[in-house]
Amino acid sequence: MFTLYEFSSSGNCYKLRLAMAQLGISFRRIEKDITRGETRATDFLAINPNGRIPVLVTPDNKVLPESNAALWYLGKDSKLMPEDDFQQAQALQWMFFEQYNHEPNIATSRYWIHVLGEREKYAEALVEKQQKGHDALRVMESHLSGRNFFVGSDYSIADIALYAYTHVAGQGGFSLEDYPAIRAWLERIEQQPGYVSMEA
Amino acid sequence: MFTLYEFSSSGNCYKLRLAMAQLGISFRRIEKDITRGETRATDFLAINPNGRIPVLVTPDNKVLPESNAALWYLGKDSKLMPEDDFQQAQALQWMFFEQYNHEPNIATSRYWIHVLGEREKYAEALVEKQQKGHDALRVMESHLSGRNFFVGSDYSIADIALYAYTHVAGQGGFSLEDYPAIRAWLERIEQQPGYVSMEA
Repeated sequence: MFTLYEFSSSGNCYKLRLAMAQLGISFRRIEKDITRGETRATDFLAINPNGRIPVLVTPDNKVLPESNAALWYLGKDSKLMPEDDFQQAQALQWMFFEQYNHEPNIATSRYWIHVLGEREKYAEALVEKQQKGHDALRVMESHLSGRNFFVGSDYSIADIALYAYTHVAGQGGFSLEDYPAIRAWLERIEQQPGYVSMEA
Repeated sequence: MFTLYEFSSSGNCYKLRLAMAQLGISFRRIEKDITRGETRATDFLAINPNGRIPVLVTPDNKVLPESNAALWYLGKDSKLMPEDDFQQAQALQWMFFEQYNHEPNIATSRYWIHVLGEREKYAEALVEKQQKGHDALRVMESHLSGRNFFVGSDYSIADIALYAYTHVAGQGGFSLEDYPAIRAWLERIEQQPGYVSMEA
């Protein structure tokens, strides 16, 4: 059985829970509270020296950090992976966009505001996060206008990677009111077979 | 023939030049000066709405932004890609680490100091970049101790992704004096067949 080291309110961890639910992969969950430094403790650093969750451990005890690398591994040769080589590269394109342009702004804002409850403390830094987060949302809105999913015509790991923090962007202070194509795409994802919510 | 839209002093663009040189892939280069806003101009935004270089264009005119997605595409089914599925996921693990923990700190510091020549202007922000950049270098040093390359026993796209900005970390104010395993790994890469320098 797979093991998922996670912080359950992290969108990065939810990506893997959603993919495994949709692929019928069973797994056990081990909670590590990042707000209490549990991923920087010696026992966890022995698992991931980078001190971050999620970490996916395979049934034969191979250890894989980085949410999107683990998502790619779970998705390989499944219905969640585009078949065509170039479309697989496009899925990675959006997954790298997610980790570079989206997550550091939208997920970090959500962490400060929703998880830590420290909006005031981070007020100054949030100004730049707001601007860059909306830049990312505008790129997504433009791409989704006239498309059902991020790559080709089918739901894929690229959609899961971007869904994780977009559907809770409001918790980071990002209104999706001006992004109708994004809102329609979120609804489309929530209708996919085997969909589970972040709280499940 | 492939086309590479690039800013030639960008490490992200160099990743693709190095991989194509080592794979014997011919390509033409189109320079876009990011210091003059050329990647935010209307003509370039029509190519990549995210306004960033590199962008790789395939011989049949398919457009691929994101350096590590393009590196993955070039490396697929080549000697630069690990053969095993899990090792391919590990290569992606290090490539996501590079874009999340390494590039935003080491490459951004280098951009401010070396490319823009504005060390004083960014003095305050550089303090945090220094700390986080050294965190990334320590993770790399630990991983490389007793290993020749990042994944398995062979040189791969993961090494190219991390080499690009590590070998010029000094230009960002990062001394590699305390990282002997990293320095030995840099030398190992510079001895690989087909190696070309960033200036080539």
